[in-house]
Amino acid sequence: MLLETCLAIGGIAGAILAMKRWQIKKRDIKGDRKAAYLSRITNTTGDKPPNIIIVLCDDLGFGDIGCFGNASIKTPHVDILARHGMMFKNCNSSAPVCSPYRAGLLTGRYGIRGHVAGVFFPSGLLSLLISPFFYSRGMRGLSPDEITLAEVLERAGYATGMVGKWHLGDRRPHLPNDFGFNHFFGAHFSNDMVPYAIYRNRDVAIPAPADQDVLTQQLTKDAISFIDSSVRSGKPFFLYYAQPFPHDPLHASPAFRGKSLAGLYGDAVEELDWSIGEIIATLKHHGVFDNTMIIFTSDNGPWHEGNPGYQRGRKYLPFEGGSRVPMIACWPARIPPGTTCKSPCSHLDIFPTILSLLGIAPPQDRVIDGQDISPILSNPQIATNQHPYHYIPLKNAKAIRKGKWKYHSRHGSDNAAYFLLRPGPFLFDMEADPQEAYNLAMNHPDIAKELASELEQFNASLKKNQRGWILRA
Amino acid sequence: MLLETCLAIGGIAGAILAMKRWQIKKRDIKGDRKAAYLSRITNTTGDKPPNIIIVLCDDLGFGDIGCFGNASIKTPHVDILARHGMMFKNCNSSAPVCSPYRAGLLTGRYGIRGHVAGVFFPSGLLSLLISPFFYSRGMRGLSPDEITLAEVLERAGYATGMVGKWHLGDRRPHLPNDFGFNHFFGAHFSNDMVPYAIYRNRDVAIPAPADQDVLTQQLTKDAISFIDSSVRSGKPFFLYYAQPFPHDPLHASPAFRGKSLAGLYGDAVEELDWSIGEIIATLKHHGVFDNTMIIFTSDNGPWHEGNPGYQRGRKYLPFEGGSRVPMIACWPARIPPGTTCKSPCSHLDIFPTILSLLGIAPPQDRVIDGQDISPILSNPQIATNQHPYHYIPLKNAKAIRKGKWKYHSRHGSDNAAYFLLRPGPFLFDMEADPQEAYNLAMNHPDIAKELASELEQFNASLKKNQRGWILRA
Repeated sequence: MLLETCLAIGGIAGAILAMKRWQIKKRDIKGDRKAAYLSRITNTTGDKPPNIIIVLCDDLGFGDIGCFGNASIKTPHVDILARHGMMFKNCNSSAPVCSPYRAGLLTGRYGIRGHVAGVFFPSGLLSLLISPFFYSRGMRGLSPDEITLAEVLERAGYATGMVGKWHLGDRRPHLPNDFGFNHFFGAHFSNDMVPYAIYRNRDVAIPAPADQDVLTQQLTKDAISFIDSSVRSGKPFFLYYAQPFPHDPLHASPAFRGKSLAGLYGDAVEELDWSIGEIIATLKHHGVFDNTMIIFTSDNGPWHEGNPGYQRGRKYLPFEGGSRVPMIACWPARIPPGTTCKSPCSHLDIFPTILSLLGIAPPQDRVIDGQDISPILSNPQIATNQHPYHYIPLKNAKAIRKGKWKYHSRHGSDNAAYFLLRPGPFLFDMEADPQEAYNLAMNHPDIAKELASELEQFNASLKKNQRGWILRA
Repeated sequence: MLLETCLAIGGIAGAILAMKRWQIKKRDIKGDRKAAYLSRITNTTGDKPPNIIIVLCDDLGFGDIGCFGNASIKTPHVDILARHGMMFKNCNSSAPVCSPYRAGLLTGRYGIRGHVAGVFFPSGLLSLLISPFFYSRGMRGLSPDEITLAEVLERAGYATGMVGKWHLGDRRPHLPNDFGFNHFFGAHFSNDMVPYAIYRNRDVAIPAPADQDVLTQQLTKDAISFIDSSVRSGKPFFLYYAQPFPHDPLHASPAFRGKSLAGLYGDAVEELDWSIGEIIATLKHHGVFDNTMIIFTSDNGPWHEGNPGYQRGRKYLPFEGGSRVPMIACWPARIPPGTTCKSPCSHLDIFPTILSLLGIAPPQDRVIDGQDISPILSNPQIATNQHPYHYIPLKNAKAIRKGKWKYHSRHGSDNAAYFLLRPGPFLFDMEADPQEAYNLAMNHPDIAKELASELEQFNASLKKNQRGWILRA
């Protein structure tokens, strides 16, 4: 009996390893292209480029902060960013779920292009067993040939630091320090995964299980320390501050626990807001607040708690509640204060926009799915353009947004009570009907047909050239 | 092979029949109690009681009509009812899904008490096969010993008519004419079920498949004809007008098709609004508008299309989007015009409230789950009381509302992407947080504990005495 069990396990393991080897062969990693691109980037720091801070919350809903209409949670420091900067009311994240989203934010490309086709689970038996089937070609982290914002900025002369949740792989060559961050302090994955340890660069700083109650305090301290040392070094800096909250399970330090009017969720968000206040104070202390671009946002819609702000659906769904998130860009030296942008845009745009602001040409060997929206930063009234944004929960697009129109292919219901049903297709006018309530496909058959075809072509292109490689002429 | 198949089918059929026989024995039908109660009701029509019309829409969302904030769908006639009557902003239906809801509306008791524990499918093999497992004790319609509003009003001297969708059984003794309606014109079940025929009383009037495009026109004509003949007869009347729309599949007549700004859904709602206009005109023509109580509402939240009006979730779910519906009560002779009631109430209250208005004692042999809210009809400012309302999608309660608090037990996620998860329990302050976003269970452990216990006791009482029989002293 023991022999048979061993043989069976051995057989399964062998099959998995064989499949993985086959997948690795098929992965078409193009590290040489990446190296060639990065080597061409020159130091831009002579032009006094802005410092860049991205504050990314985890599962924070569109309606969870004061300046976006929340009355129960006090976010005075986020509200300061809004008063000094631009609020984006029509910004979608790059994916409605964690890992694909983070790939999209850092690369300007849909997660699937970098083999990020789902949430990465911690390395271990489960991850190993599901990897051949669940992950894109078995890859358990962001593909090493993807080019991240940190790598570009590092080449351009920035000090690059990351604080918080990574979630793009928990082993080499998928770690923050493998992707251009000189400094890392945080966790490899979500705060509901185990073993939840906190790393400083490649070493464990706080062994699992880390006390999450004090996590925001620790991350804030580290973020400030990174800013301090970067300013002292005379370099511009890029800080990617990926807050682990208000992702479930919720935590807050004793000073914030029970203080908000919105339960532990509100406490966590108010502590996160405090953290932003500390960062603003540090920037002001160093006299660099005016020339720092702070982008405040969230990765996707809310999960079990949280307020999607009158959008339909929640996290993971291709409805707006899954990916419409609050975004603020504050950069007093450049962005007009107290402004609001209503044009559709996406976090995919952050990579090409920052490159454009710094005068760095984007990679030419691969599709960049986002677009340069830097003109909007000077004038939020610029009319909606027709750049298409796709809604890709996992491996292919379920919906497409173009201008005011959003088209859903037939896909699984958003309603758990009817999860077996596949209603649609739907065409929604997102200006007249932001809640995706009324199907206009019959009223505008030409638009529905055009978008259906574009969505289909996009999915076909993903099948044919998932990585989006552009062949050199 | 044929023999084995026949034997297997025979065996399964035999087992089902045996189980059904056993279930029928266990059904504890108490027809004598019902007869005794009804026999005690005396004719009340000497006091000029109001005519009563309930206009029930199917799957219409809280945000789908003009006076409840919709800008795309024009509902001038429903809006007239609001201007002449009272809008209920905090009214929940008796269940978030069709058949249990309709049982609750007509009896003032949760559907499960009358063996309505799910949606009834048309009689046939599917219905037969699932009935032992899916339906409460295999009953495929409202239990014959349930007392409906129509039966009470018929005994009180009213002409009773029903037009539209029944959905409480498609065979005797479960049909509208078995439950106090002298007149019936409509369908036995939802418009997505087959064979979809239209009946006049017990006979097929329009064979399946009935043309649903002209259904609202036909139902309107019949409703008006019923009002005409009732007024001519000198009797007060009760009309239950159960609109089949905007339940999917959507239909509208050529005059309305493509006319709204909200697709076919909006067209169907605008035609339904027209229908209400025709009814108002008929009442005015007969000079009886002032002494007619018109209740306009919906059975549950929206399904694939439609706007739940900033509530969380949709049809079938124990979140508000499943059962918070628009309700208007218009009765110029009694209800102050242009008023709004914000106190929590339920469609379960309609049965005891109408009985109270007519001075008829409710049945004493069974629990009535609703409460008499007739004082609110004169003064909508009456403070919220502590009557508990339960959220029962099928056989037991998943959540409880009491005053401003709503408590969810741990139950399946509302989010189809996480349908396997069971988050919670949650305690929500429905005044501060109507979107059920922030769990306050940790902030108010006493309230959470009290409501958890009340919910548990209620579910235990359903197990012990599902029918809610009250033993005579």
